[in-house]
Amino acid sequence: MDIQYLIRDLKIKNSSKIVLLVADGLGGLPLEPGGPTELEAAKTPNLDALAKIGTLGSSIPIAPGITPGSGPGHLGLFGYNPLKYLIGRGALEATGVGFKLGPTDVAVRCNFVTLDATGNITDRRASRIPSEESAPLAIKLREVKLPGIEVFVEPVQEHRFCVIFRGEGLGGNVADTDPQKTGVPPLDPKARDDRSQRTAELAKQFVKAAEKLLHGQPKANGLTMRGFANAPDLPSYEDVYGLKAAAIAVYPMYKGLAQLVGMELIGNAHSLVEEIDLLEKVWNDYDFFFVHFKYTDSRGEDGNFAEKARMIEQFDAIVPRVLALKPTVLAVTGDHSTPAKMKSHSWHPVPVLISGQNVRTDACQSFGESECVKGGLGQFQAMHLMPLLLAHADRLGKFGA
Amino acid sequence: MDIQYLIRDLKIKNSSKIVLLVADGLGGLPLEPGGPTELEAAKTPNLDALAKIGTLGSSIPIAPGITPGSGPGHLGLFGYNPLKYLIGRGALEATGVGFKLGPTDVAVRCNFVTLDATGNITDRRASRIPSEESAPLAIKLREVKLPGIEVFVEPVQEHRFCVIFRGEGLGGNVADTDPQKTGVPPLDPKARDDRSQRTAELAKQFVKAAEKLLHGQPKANGLTMRGFANAPDLPSYEDVYGLKAAAIAVYPMYKGLAQLVGMELIGNAHSLVEEIDLLEKVWNDYDFFFVHFKYTDSRGEDGNFAEKARMIEQFDAIVPRVLALKPTVLAVTGDHSTPAKMKSHSWHPVPVLISGQNVRTDACQSFGESECVKGGLGQFQAMHLMPLLLAHADRLGKFGA
Repeated sequence: MDIQYLIRDLKIKNSSKIVLLVADGLGGLPLEPGGPTELEAAKTPNLDALAKIGTLGSSIPIAPGITPGSGPGHLGLFGYNPLKYLIGRGALEATGVGFKLGPTDVAVRCNFVTLDATGNITDRRASRIPSEESAPLAIKLREVKLPGIEVFVEPVQEHRFCVIFRGEGLGGNVADTDPQKTGVPPLDPKARDDRSQRTAELAKQFVKAAEKLLHGQPKANGLTMRGFANAPDLPSYEDVYGLKAAAIAVYPMYKGLAQLVGMELIGNAHSLVEEIDLLEKVWNDYDFFFVHFKYTDSRGEDGNFAEKARMIEQFDAIVPRVLALKPTVLAVTGDHSTPAKMKSHSWHPVPVLISGQNVRTDACQSFGESECVKGGLGQFQAMHLMPLLLAHADRLGKFGA
Repeated sequence: MDIQYLIRDLKIKNSSKIVLLVADGLGGLPLEPGGPTELEAAKTPNLDALAKIGTLGSSIPIAPGITPGSGPGHLGLFGYNPLKYLIGRGALEATGVGFKLGPTDVAVRCNFVTLDATGNITDRRASRIPSEESAPLAIKLREVKLPGIEVFVEPVQEHRFCVIFRGEGLGGNVADTDPQKTGVPPLDPKARDDRSQRTAELAKQFVKAAEKLLHGQPKANGLTMRGFANAPDLPSYEDVYGLKAAAIAVYPMYKGLAQLVGMELIGNAHSLVEEIDLLEKVWNDYDFFFVHFKYTDSRGEDGNFAEKARMIEQFDAIVPRVLALKPTVLAVTGDHSTPAKMKSHSWHPVPVLISGQNVRTDACQSFGESECVKGGLGQFQAMHLMPLLLAHADRLGKFGA
C-alpha cells in the first residue's frame, strides 16, 4: 500500500507550522578514514543545540546504494515514492528552467545540431554554441505554430533547449530522434504507442518549421529531440497532507519540483538570507515551508571540502531566525549526499534532524553523520519523513480503532 | 511478498515455548528534552537483567509517523501486515466486547436514538442512556428473528450496542444509517455493492422489528447502524506458524483480537498476577503464550507519568515467575507507544526485548527507549517480530538450498 493513501485518510488540519530546511547534498564523507565529514568539520552551534533537544537519524533517499538526481531526491523528501512517481527527462528539463508544467503537457529535451547541405548531421551539439547565441534562436522558435495545440520553447544552456506541446490526449511515448552519430540525418519522431501518434506527428511538423526558421544559421540549423515525457501526475500537498505549502528556493529546478507537488512559489530570492526574509514575510499565510539551500551541493560537486563546510556554516547561521518564528516542527536535512571527496551526488544516507513538540530525544549531542547513526529516528527511507513531520505536528489521526 | 507466505513453508514444529509479554502502550516520551521516559524512570531490575543477556530494538507498529489503534497495533505484533488485514469498525466493536466473530459474520455498530412521534430523531445518542438501562434493551433485541440467518445482539456501553448477522454470502458493504443530524428519520440501510443487497434488506427488517420492541421507551425507542463490516479473514497461528497459541488477557478487546488469529482464550483473569497464575497452569498445553497487560496504556492515556511508570514496575515484578517456567524465547514489548505527555497513542517506536537461546547479545544494559536505539535488533516493523521469535526458537527452516 502506498503510504500516501493512508495519509490522505488520516490527515488532520490544525494551525501548526512545519518547516523543512533542505541543504542540498548535505551528507558528506571524511577525507581520511575516521576524519570528520563536511558537516562535522563545520562549526554549527545552532544545529548542534537543536540536536540536543531534537532527534536525529539518517535518511536513505531511494534505497541503499542508489544515488538520486535532484528530481527523485526531492520527491522522496516531499513524501512521494520516487520509484513510483517517475519524472521523465523532458519534464525534468522543463521543470529545471522553471517552466510550470500543466497536466496535458508533453515536454521534450532538444539539442541544436549542425546539418550539412544534404541534411546529414555534422555536429550533434552545434559546436557547443554559447548560450548567448543559442537562447535567441530558441526564442525565435516560439514563432512555430501547430494545429490544435499550444507550443512553448524554453532556452536551457548552450546547444540545449526544451519544447513543450500542450493539448488534450497527447501521449509522451515517442522515441528519441538523435541518431547518436554524425553523417546521417536526424531520425523522424516515432510513436511507441497509439496515444502518442499525434505527438509524433506534431513533433515532425515542429522540426520542419524549426528548420525553416533556422535556415542559414552557421552552427544551429537543425535539432534533435530526446526524452519526450508527459507531465508527471503527482497528487498535491493539499490533497495528500492537507497542507497549504510554500516553496522558497533560489534555483529554478527546485522551484519547479516544488510546483509539481502543488507548493506555491514565494518571491524571487537570490540568497539564503533573502529566502529567510521571504519566510518571515509569508509566515502567517502557509502551514508548511520548504526552504532550499543550493550551495552545499555546488561546493560538494566542485570537490571543495572547506567551502562546502563554509556553506554549511552559512546555513547554520540562519537557524536562529527560523526558530524565532516558533515553528511547531522544524526538520533539517538534505535531498542526498554530495561528498566533496567524490565531486558528485552519492548514495550515502543523509543526516536528518527533527525538533519540536513530541520529539523523543536521544543521546545525540551535535548534528553530524556519526551522531545521526546513534539517533532515535534510526535509518529510514526519505519518503517516510513527511509522515513523521505531520505526526509531530499533531496532523495525523490514529489508524484503526 | 507477504512474509507470512514464506513462514508457512519454512515453519518447523518442535517442543519450544515462546512467551510474548505485551505491556500495552509501553513506549513513552520524556517530560523534558533529554529526560527519562516512563520505562526509563521505572525501576525494572528484572527487565534490566534480561536486557543484559538478551537483545534490544525498536519496533515501528505500522510505518514511521503512523499511530495505530489497538487493532492494527496487535495485528502487527501477531505478525500480520496491518495495512493488508483491515478490521472494519463493526468487527472491531464486536471483538472488543469479546464476541467471537465467525467467517460468515457481518458486524454492525449501533446507537440507540430517541425518535419523536413522526419517527424523526430528537437525540442521536438517546440522552446517553446509562449502561444499566441500555444493556437490558440490547438484550431484549435478541428476540428479533430474521429469515435464513442468525442474529446476535451485544450491549456495549451507554447508547452503544452491536449487532451481528451470521449467514452465508452476506456482504458487509452497507452505508451508515445515521443521518448525522436530528429532525430527520434514520436513513434506510443501503447496499454499496451487489453482495451486500441482502445484508441491507435484513438490516432494514431488523430495524423495523427492533423499533416495535422498543416502542414506548422514553429514551431508546430507535436505532442507527454504522460501520457494517465482514469478519476479517485472518489466517490462523496454527496455519501460518504451526503454533498452538494461548491468549491471556483481562480486557475483552485483546481477547477478541487474539481469537481473530486463532489463539485460544485462557481463563478469566482480573489482574496481571492472575494472568501469570493462568500461564503457569496451562504451560504444558501450548507452544505460544500471548500475555497482555493493559494498565500501562491506561495510565498513559490518563497523562499520569508516575502511575504509568508504577504500572511498568508491576509488570517488571512478574518477570521472574515467567522466567521460572523456562521459556525457550521470551519477548517483551508493547503494541504502540502511549506517552503520558501526549495522553494518547503515538507513532513513536516501541521498545522490544528478546531473550532466550541463540540471542546475539548487544551492549545494552537496561530496558528503555534510549538503550533500544543502540540494540542489536535495530529498528524494524512490528510484523517482523514473530518470525524473529520463531527463528530464536528453532522453528524456522532455511529459505532456499
